[in-house]
Amino acid sequence: MNNDEKMMKRALELASNGRGFTAPNPMVGAVIVKDGKIIGEGYHKKAGEAHAEVNAIESASESVEGATLYVTLEPCSHFGKTPPCSELIIDRKIKKVVIAATDPNSLVSGSGIKQLRQAGIEVVTGIYEKESHKLNEVFNYYITTKLPYVVMKYAMSLDGKIATETGESKWITSQDSRQHARYLRAHLSGIMVGINTVLKDDPELTCRVPAFENPTRIILDSRLRIPLDAKVLSHQQDAPTIILTTSQAPSAKLDKLKGKHIEVLVLPDKNGQVDLKEAMKILGEKGIDSLLLEGGGTVNASALSADIVNKLAVYIAPILIGGDGAPSPVMGKGIQKMSEVFKLNNMDITRIRDDMHIEAYIDRRNQ
Amino acid sequence: MNNDEKMMKRALELASNGRGFTAPNPMVGAVIVKDGKIIGEGYHKKAGEAHAEVNAIESASESVEGATLYVTLEPCSHFGKTPPCSELIIDRKIKKVVIAATDPNSLVSGSGIKQLRQAGIEVVTGIYEKESHKLNEVFNYYITTKLPYVVMKYAMSLDGKIATETGESKWITSQDSRQHARYLRAHLSGIMVGINTVLKDDPELTCRVPAFENPTRIILDSRLRIPLDAKVLSHQQDAPTIILTTSQAPSAKLDKLKGKHIEVLVLPDKNGQVDLKEAMKILGEKGIDSLLLEGGGTVNASALSADIVNKLAVYIAPILIGGDGAPSPVMGKGIQKMSEVFKLNNMDITRIRDDMHIEAYIDRRNQ
Repeated sequence: MNNDEKMMKRALELASNGRGFTAPNPMVGAVIVKDGKIIGEGYHKKAGEAHAEVNAIESASESVEGATLYVTLEPCSHFGKTPPCSELIIDRKIKKVVIAATDPNSLVSGSGIKQLRQAGIEVVTGIYEKESHKLNEVFNYYITTKLPYVVMKYAMSLDGKIATETGESKWITSQDSRQHARYLRAHLSGIMVGINTVLKDDPELTCRVPAFENPTRIILDSRLRIPLDAKVLSHQQDAPTIILTTSQAPSAKLDKLKGKHIEVLVLPDKNGQVDLKEAMKILGEKGIDSLLLEGGGTVNASALSADIVNKLAVYIAPILIGGDGAPSPVMGKGIQKMSEVFKLNNMDITRIRDDMHIEAYIDRRNQ
Repeated sequence: MNNDEKMMKRALELASNGRGFTAPNPMVGAVIVKDGKIIGEGYHKKAGEAHAEVNAIESASESVEGATLYVTLEPCSHFGKTPPCSELIIDRKIKKVVIAATDPNSLVSGSGIKQLRQAGIEVVTGIYEKESHKLNEVFNYYITTKLPYVVMKYAMSLDGKIATETGESKWITSQDSRQHARYLRAHLSGIMVGINTVLKDDPELTCRVPAFENPTRIILDSRLRIPLDAKVLSHQQDAPTIILTTSQAPSAKLDKLKGKHIEVLVLPDKNGQVDLKEAMKILGEKGIDSLLLEGGGTVNASALSADIVNKLAVYIAPILIGGDGAPSPVMGKGIQKMSEVFKLNNMDITRIRDDMHIEAYIDRRNQ
């Protein structure tokens, strides 16, 4: 690892401290180096607050004149909630700027860099570009598509079961894996399940991670079967709930839910179920930039067929459950021929104690 | 890694060169070191041929007097097909012997070490003991139980399917994983499948790995439904077949198979199926020290219930198949409560290109 890489790695670390707090902004980290020594560090802590560059410059232990700035994303060159960072960098006479990735928004991409260069600042790009893109995969997708980035999550035994034949699933994975999954909830802005999960488990669907906000709870319920005393309908001030239904919903139930100040959206249906492609559009318009899908086998199958899934987060426990009738993570109709399988890319495997955790990206069919 | 560990690691590497050829003997490797330099190396190449110690001593580039011998298993002290190694070590005036593991056979364990020490040789034990035990896990189990060591193997998608709903399974994993699995077959002395696999796929069940012998093909066929032209019945000289059946087998079919010089064993049944515990006893008596179970979901479930499985070898491909009706690796009745799951120990994860390979040990219930 050369010096530029070392400094950018630190900037990426700093950036990731903002995970779960910066939406709808990207995570960004910055490091200021003078005479080979770090003299300032910063990251974007929360949407609406100062950008990483500003925090790094303000934290500097000495003048930043003549220093090098390492920043994980191209500095902004436009007035948003805060003044453009490019101007601040020029004003403070920073000599060199090293950038991991350019702005994903193709309309403004490169304009920050251009402005810096015009001011005579040396600009280097592409150091840990891939890592910076991965860090902001949610932001990059949402800003270009206006659709939520969907992560399908499930926990299964090594023989591919998410519960026993009788439906028992507490607990397949270890406490550490479940804690890890709660952070997944905390890091994304929405969590989506099917009505069957609500009827069977009556979950709260909150993240219970200190300091983090709960994700918006989204329930797929084409016929509005949700009980009025379901736990997901409580604590609306801490964790809002949106119910997605269809015209099959009885209007009396709809009125009752609205009376409880629950947001119910009546969407077009597809084979009797909520049209998931349509649902993503509406949720994207409402500012939901990311969704954790904890749906069970049937909802997972529908989401795959509707081609709305970006990423998989799988937990595998070192146990075998067995059983013809035990549910598996993806059910529904399933594919018929091996040539039609859903392919996954960049599978990343880590261990969480005795469990395995796998991240992988869906090779999307229509994108 | 200190010097003893470095040398023992080399001896373990040498030992593993014998994999697939030494049964019913263990794999053993040996290194001879003098003045800090390796002067001789050897391993047990094949049952009936020279032991590792003899090969190492004979390969020495100078006199072994005063040298240190590193050997992965306690040297033998009894006359078998070859004279005892302990005597040769004493004769050649080796000064020190470093041993990874003692003999697993409790009747003779320690007697080789005792003999060396009585002759004034310094003996150190326990360097990479765990690794030596793992290397010979098949041998250690068979010599103490006289039952085959059973490895359950399956290949599945990341959503736990071993085929599509229509039964298509060619191919779930990559060519590299399938090659890896052929070595699994080559390294074990038997391969076992259920009759449904024969009827559906008509496989040859040979290993097709140059230099290795084919495993004995064992078919579970309680009612002798096997077609007389099944591929597993051909090439008996290269790959013998044993059919395990029950008293439900029609005697005419039994006679026809015997007429083709196929070994058919009529075993007690359990719920209409071949009693697998009984089958393991008989196969053990016949010298089958190890079995690869490539059975499919139903046979796998029976084998787990019968508590005959020692180890799992799982290949997971980065694909999703989905489907209520797609077969999973362990079917059958399955467990009902999470407290009854089959637990796995020492899960080891490696990558084979884009696939994952997982080895794990069954936490046996009655052992």
